[in-house]
Amino acid sequence: MLKGIPHNLSPDLVKVLMEMGHGDEIVLADGNFPAASYAKKLIRADGHGGAVLLESILSLLPLDDFVDTPVMLMDTVDANQSAPPIWKIYEQVIKSGCEENVAIGHFERYTFYERSRNAYAIVATSESALYGNIILKKGVIRK
Amino acid sequence: MLKGIPHNLSPDLVKVLMEMGHGDEIVLADGNFPAASYAKKLIRADGHGGAVLLESILSLLPLDDFVDTPVMLMDTVDANQSAPPIWKIYEQVIKSGCEENVAIGHFERYTFYERSRNAYAIVATSESALYGNIILKKGVIRK
Amino acid sequence: MLKGIPHNLSPDLVKVLMEMGHGDEIVLADGNFPAASYAKKLIRADGHGGAVLLESILSLLPLDDFVDTPVMLMDTVDANQSAPPIWKIYEQVIKSGCEENVAIGHFERYTFYERSRNAYAIVATSESALYGNIILKKGVIRK
Amino acid sequence: MLKGIPHNLSPDLVKVLMEMGHGDEIVLADGNFPAASYAKKLIRADGHGGAVLLESILSLLPLDDFVDTPVMLMDTVDANQSAPPIWKIYEQVIKSGCEENVAIGHFERYTFYERSRNAYAIVATSESALYGNIILKKGVIRK
Amino acid sequence: MLKGIPHNLSPDLVKVLMEMGHGDEIVLADGNFPAASYAKKLIRADGHGGAVLLESILSLLPLDDFVDTPVMLMDTVDANQSAPPIWKIYEQVIKSGCEENVAIGHFERYTFYERSRNAYAIVATSESALYGNIILKKGVIRK
Amino acid sequence: MLKGIPHNLSPDLVKVLMEMGHGDEIVLADGNFPAASYAKKLIRADGHGGAVLLESILSLLPLDDFVDTPVMLMDTVDANQSAPPIWKIYEQVIKSGCEENVAIGHFERYTFYERSRNAYAIVATSESALYGNIILKKGVIRK
Amino acid sequence: MLKGIPHNLSPDLVKVLMEMGHGDEIVLADGNFPAASYAKKLIRADGHGGAVLLESILSLLPLDDFVDTPVMLMDTVDANQSAPPIWKIYEQVIKSGCEENVAIGHFERYTFYERSRNAYAIVATSESALYGNIILKKGVIRK
Amino acid sequence: MLKGIPHNLSPDLVKVLMEMGHGDEIVLADGNFPAASYAKKLIRADGHGGAVLLESILSLLPLDDFVDTPVMLMDTVDANQSAPPIWKIYEQVIKSGCEENVAIGHFERYTFYERSRNAYAIVATSESALYGNIILKKGVIRK
Amino acid sequence: MLKGIPHNLSPDLVKVLMEMGHGDEIVLADGNFPAASYAKKLIRADGHGGAVLLESILSLLPLDDFVDTPVMLMDTVDANQSAPPIWKIYEQVIKSGCEENVAIGHFERYTFYERSRNAYAIVATSESALYGNIILKKGVIRK
Amino acid sequence: MLKGIPHNLSPDLVKVLMEMGHGDEIVLADGNFPAASYAKKLIRADGHGGAVLLESILSLLPLDDFVDTPVMLMDTVDANQSAPPIWKIYEQVIKSGCEENVAIGHFERYTFYERSRNAYAIVATSESALYGNIILKKGVIRK
Repeated sequence: MLKGIPHNLSPDLVKVLMEMGHGDEIVLADGNFPAASYAKKLIRADGHGGAVLLESILSLLPLDDFVDTPVMLMDTVDANQSAPPIWKIYEQVIKSGCEENVAIGHFERYTFYERSRNAYAIVATSESALYGNIILKKGVIRK
Repeated sequence: MLKGIPHNLSPDLVKVLMEMGHGDEIVLADGNFPAASYAKKLIRADGHGGAVLLESILSLLPLDDFVDTPVMLMDTVDANQSAPPIWKIYEQVIKSGCEENVAIGHFERYTFYERSRNAYAIVATSESALYGNIILKKGVIRK
Repeated sequence: MLKGIPHNLSPDLVKVLMEMGHGDEIVLADGNFPAASYAKKLIRADGHGGAVLLESILSLLPLDDFVDTPVMLMDTVDANQSAPPIWKIYEQVIKSGCEENVAIGHFERYTFYERSRNAYAIVATSESALYGNIILKKGVIRK
Repeated sequence: MLKGIPHNLSPDLVKVLMEMGHGDEIVLADGNFPAASYAKKLIRADGHGGAVLLESILSLLPLDDFVDTPVMLMDTVDANQSAPPIWKIYEQVIKSGCEENVAIGHFERYTFYERSRNAYAIVATSESALYGNIILKKGVIRK
Repeated sequence: MLKGIPHNLSPDLVKVLMEMGHGDEIVLADGNFPAASYAKKLIRADGHGGAVLLESILSLLPLDDFVDTPVMLMDTVDANQSAPPIWKIYEQVIKSGCEENVAIGHFERYTFYERSRNAYAIVATSESALYGNIILKKGVIRK
Repeated sequence: MLKGIPHNLSPDLVKVLMEMGHGDEIVLADGNFPAASYAKKLIRADGHGGAVLLESILSLLPLDDFVDTPVMLMDTVDANQSAPPIWKIYEQVIKSGCEENVAIGHFERYTFYERSRNAYAIVATSESALYGNIILKKGVIRK
Repeated sequence: MLKGIPHNLSPDLVKVLMEMGHGDEIVLADGNFPAASYAKKLIRADGHGGAVLLESILSLLPLDDFVDTPVMLMDTVDANQSAPPIWKIYEQVIKSGCEENVAIGHFERYTFYERSRNAYAIVATSESALYGNIILKKGVIRK
Repeated sequence: MLKGIPHNLSPDLVKVLMEMGHGDEIVLADGNFPAASYAKKLIRADGHGGAVLLESILSLLPLDDFVDTPVMLMDTVDANQSAPPIWKIYEQVIKSGCEENVAIGHFERYTFYERSRNAYAIVATSESALYGNIILKKGVIRK
Repeated sequence: MLKGIPHNLSPDLVKVLMEMGHGDEIVLADGNFPAASYAKKLIRADGHGGAVLLESILSLLPLDDFVDTPVMLMDTVDANQSAPPIWKIYEQVIKSGCEENVAIGHFERYTFYERSRNAYAIVATSESALYGNIILKKGVIRK
Repeated sequence: MLKGIPHNLSPDLVKVLMEMGHGDEIVLADGNFPAASYAKKLIRADGHGGAVLLESILSLLPLDDFVDTPVMLMDTVDANQSAPPIWKIYEQVIKSGCEENVAIGHFERYTFYERSRNAYAIVATSESALYGNIILKKGVIRK
C-alpha cells in the first residue's frame, strides 16, 4: 500500500498500467470471460466487481483523445435484449472519473474477443453481471 | 484435500477449471490419446478412468447453454462400428450431474484432434476403452 | 468461477489450499504486513479485507484439531492497548465457519514474523486494520 | 501407456524411480500428509489409494537388502492406539510383491517428517486412511 | 535402473515413450542426422547404435496397426545404391520384437526431414551407418 | 507514465514500493555502491542523482514511525571528515516531503553494507557524491 | 560506473549497443510511446529526456553510412502541424556528436510503429515532448 | 582446456559443433555483422579474428561433400570492388585444413543474411575486415 | 560427431570436461549409484559400462599430478571381500591411457558419497558391476 | 563493437564491469583455473591470454585506492620457485594502465580460491602460463 494509489490495484496491475503507452488497450473482463485464453498478459483480480476497479484505474490512467471511442463494451448476443444495467454503472464511473466527455463504443462478441487477444493486458475480475466486459485505450500525458 | 472438492482432482486441474471462462473447452482424453502432442496445457491423471473424472469435474464445472452441444465425443473411425459402451456410461454421468438436458455432439477423429489442439487443457486419463475421449465446453455462472 | 468455490479465492489460492497438508500453516496478512519479504509463497489479494477471505477459506479448509490453537493472531506491540476490534470480527467468522470450538492463540510481533517465514503461504490482503494478521493451521480430512 | 508398465504410474513417477539409486528413498504419502512442504521433488497421484500405487511401484523397484528395514511406516501419535488397518494391507502388498522377506520399521511422526524431507521424492496420494504413509528404500539391480 | 526396463533407455526417453499416444512418431536418428535442428524434443543417446535401441524401445512401445507402415526409413539419395545393410538389421530386430507382421515404408531424404520435424521426439544415436534413420509410429494398448 | 506518479520512478520500482510492508527497507545507493553484490532485488536508476529519486519516493512511501530513525546514512570512513554536503540536501528533501519530524541515523560502512544485504531492494542511482547512500524504512498506511 | 562510459547508460543498454551490428536499429521512445508493446527487447530509462540519452549513445555508437538516412523521426499525425521543437534539439545533438553530415528521415506514425517492432531494442525514456521518438541505425567500425 | 581441442574454442562452441548434423550450417560472423539479430543460437568469440577460429573449427568439423560449395562468403555490395584480402586468407586456411578440394560459393548481402537466420549457430567474432563473414556446412563422419 | 572426439561422449559431457579446471573432480558412477541425489551437475550415459567411458574421457582429460592419487575408487562395504574384477579393468584402462604412472586411492562408501556431492559432475553410467564407481581429478595442460 | 570500448571485451564482461561497485572484485583466471567451480558469475574469454584482457579492463575499470593492494596474485605452491614470468608482464600492464602506483599483493593457493569464490565475477581466460591468475578490486569514480 502506498500514498495516493488505490488499494485494490495490485502491484502487477499498476506496473502494467505504467508500462502501457499511447494506444495500448487494457480489458476489464467479467467473471465469466475466458480471460486466461485470450490474455497476452493476465492480471487476476478475483472477488472484485468491474466498477470499483474501473474507478481506481481511471484515477491513474489517461484515456486516448486521438480516437472517437477510447472505451468499448461487448454487445449482447441477442440484439433485442435491453442494455445490461452494468453499462449504466460503468458510464457513471467514467463520467465521474474523466474531465472531458468520453464516447463509448460497442463490439460484437467475437470482435471483442479478437480485440482482447491483442490488448496489452486483461484484468480478470469476478464481476457477476453478464456483459460486464470493458476495454480502455490509454491516452497521452501532456506536460 | 479440501472440503467439498473431489479428491481425484489435482490442484492443477482445479486451478485450470477455475481459470477457464465461458466457451473454453477441456478434453478428457483416454489412455491412448496423443495428449502431450495436442495439449496447450496438459494435466495428467494417470490411472484414472474417464467416467470418475467426468463426474468429479461436472460437480464443479457449468456447461455452456449458449451452444447446442456443450459435450462432444470422438466418432469411431469405422462408421459401421456400434457405439462404444463407454459412451453410454458418459451419458449417464452427464445426466446425473447436470440439472438440464445436455445434447452430445460427435466429431470425426481428425476434427476432434484439431479441436483438442485449441482446447484450454487436456486431461490425460488412463481410460482403457477406445473412443473414450470427451470434450466439455464451459458455461457461465449466473448470480 | 466454479460451482461451490467462493469467487474471491483466486485459482492460485485454491491450488495452495489443496496442496497444503496436516500441520501446514497459511497467513492472512493485513495490508501493512511485509508479506513479500516473509513469504515462501506469496498470494496477493489486493483490495480485500481479512474477514471476507477468512470466511471463504474456512468454507474449504479444515483446521487442525491435534493442536491447542490452530488459529493465531499477532499481539499488539503495546501490551496495554485494548484488543483491536478486528479480532472480534475474526472470532465471529471462525465461530460461524467451524463446527467445533476453536481456541485462538497469540504471538508477539517478531515471533509472528518468524512463524510467517515458515508458513506454506502468505495471503497479502489489503485489510486496513492494524493487527489484522492471522495464521491458520490446516487439519485433516477424515473419510 | 506402454507394455509392462502399470498404467497408474505417471511418466514423471517412472522417471523418478529410474533416476533413484541404491539407498535413495521415496515416500508414499497419504492424502493428509504435508507433501508439498516436505518434498524435494513432488509427484502428485491424486485420487489414488496407497496400496495400488505401492503394488505398481514394487513391480519395478528393488528394495534395499543392505539395511534391516527398507520399508518404514509413520507411528501413531497415540502410542496406545492399535495398529491402523492400512498397515496390514501394505504388509500384504509387500509380501506379494517381493521375493524375499522384508522387515518393516517405524518412525515417530516428526522423525518421519525429517526423513521425508531428505527423500528423493514424495508421491502425494489421496489415501484417506490416517497413518497411511510409507517410505521405500531402493536397492540394487544385480546382473 | 529398474526391473523390466532395458538399461540403455534413459529416464527421459522412457518418459517420452510413456507420454506419446496413438499416432505419435519417434525418430531413431543416426549419428550424422541433424537431430538438434529438427527435434521438437531431443533425446541424446550418444555412443549407441540404432539396432540395440530399436530392440529396447520395441520391448515397451506398441506399433500403430491403424496404418499401413508404422515403421519408416530414409531412402538413399542415389536411387541406384543397393539397400544399406543396416536396413536388414533393423528389419530383423522388428521381426523379433513384434508379434504381428510389420510393413516398412520409405521416405525421400527431405520428406523424411520434414516428418522428423513433426515427430514427438528424436533420439540422437551414434549409429555410424549412413541411412541408419528410422521412424516408429506408436499404436494403442488394448485392455 | 500515469497521473500522479513521478516519471522518474520505473514500473519495477513502483511495484517494489507497493510490495514492501511495515519495516521493510529500501536503499538508495550512490553510483559507487556495490549495489549488484548486496541487493536481494536490484532496481537500476542509472543517470539519476539521489535527491530527485528520494523526493519522488517519499511522495508515495510512508516512513516508519514505530522506530527512532526510519532514515539511515552511511558514515564516512574517516571520522574526522566533515559531513558530506549531500547529507544536507537529503535532509532538506526529507523535511519537505514528510509531515512529521524524521530523525536520521548513521551506520559505519560495513554495518551499512550488511543492512543493505537484508533490505527489500536496492536502487542503484548514479549519484556522484561519495557517501550518497541512504536507507528508508517503510511505515504503515493508516485508514 | 566506468571510465569513459556516460553514467546515464545502464549496463543493459551498453550491452545492447555492443551486441547490435551493422544495420540493426534502436529506438529512443518518448514517454508516451507504447514501448513495451512493440519492443523485442525493452530497455527502460525512466526519468530521462531523449536528448541527453541521444548524446550519450552517439558517443559510443557509429551511424550507418551505407544508407541515406540512418536517423528517423515519427511524423506528426496532423500534416499541417509545424515541426515539434524537440526535432531541432535532436538535430543539434546529432550534429555535435557525428563527424560527418547525417540526413534525417521521417516515417508516418504507424510505419514508425512497425519499424519499431523490428528494431533490435527500444529505449523507453520519459521524454515529455510529443513526437520525441527517434530511430538510430548502427553503422560499421572500420579499423 | 582439454587435450586435442584448440583453446580458442569455448565449451559452448564445441558443444554446438558436436550437436550439428549433416547439412547444418554455422556462420563465422565478422565484428560488424548483426549476429545477435540473426542467430538462432549465438556464440560470442569477442576479440578473435575469423581466420584463427576457422582453422580451429576445421580441425574438428567435417565439411559437406554432398553439395557443390560447403563454404560460402558474403559478396561485396559494390560488385566492382576487388576481392577483400580476408577471402584469400580464409581460402588458405581451408586449403590447409581439408584433405580434399573445397569450392567456395558467394551470396549477395541480404541472401547471406537470410541464410544466416536459418543457420544452426552464428559465432560472433571481432574480425575487423569488412566482408569477413563465412558459412560452413557440416558433412558426415564416415566410419 | 566430430573428428577426434570419441562418439560415446555426449556434447554435454565434453562441455563439462572443458569447463573443469585444475583440481575439479568428475565421478563415473555405476548403474546403482544414487547419482541424481548427489550430483551438482548430472550427465547421463545410460546403457554404457564404466570402462569404455573411462577410456574415452582419458583421451581428452589430463589427470592431476599435484596430488598422490588423482584416481579414487569406492571401497567394498565388506572389508574381507576380494577386490571386484571391475577394478582391474579400470586399472588397465588407466595404464593404457596415461603416459605416467597413476596411483589409485580408495574411499569408504560414505566418504565416497560426500566426495561425489562436491564433484563438478557425476556421469551416470549403467555399469552393472557393483563397486564400479570411480573419481577422476583433473590436472593441468602445460604449454 | 563500439567506439572507445576494446573489442576483446564481450558485452557480458562490460556489463559486469559496469555493475560492479566500490570494493567488488573480479578474477582474471588462467586456463587451468577451476573457474566454473568457483565463480558466482562466470565470463568466458577462451583463447585469450591474461595480459591483453588485463590491459583492456584497466582502460575502463578504476582500482580501489582505499586499500593497500587492489591487485592480488596467486602464490606458487612451491615457495622456492622463482617468480613466474607472467607476473612481470602483468606488472608492466598495470604500470602502463594506471596513473598512480599500484601495490600488488599475494595469496596462498587455497586462500586465493576462497577469495575467488566471493568475487563478483571470474573471467575464464586461456592464459597458458601457470600462476597466471589475478584479482582486481574496483575503486570509485570521482566526479
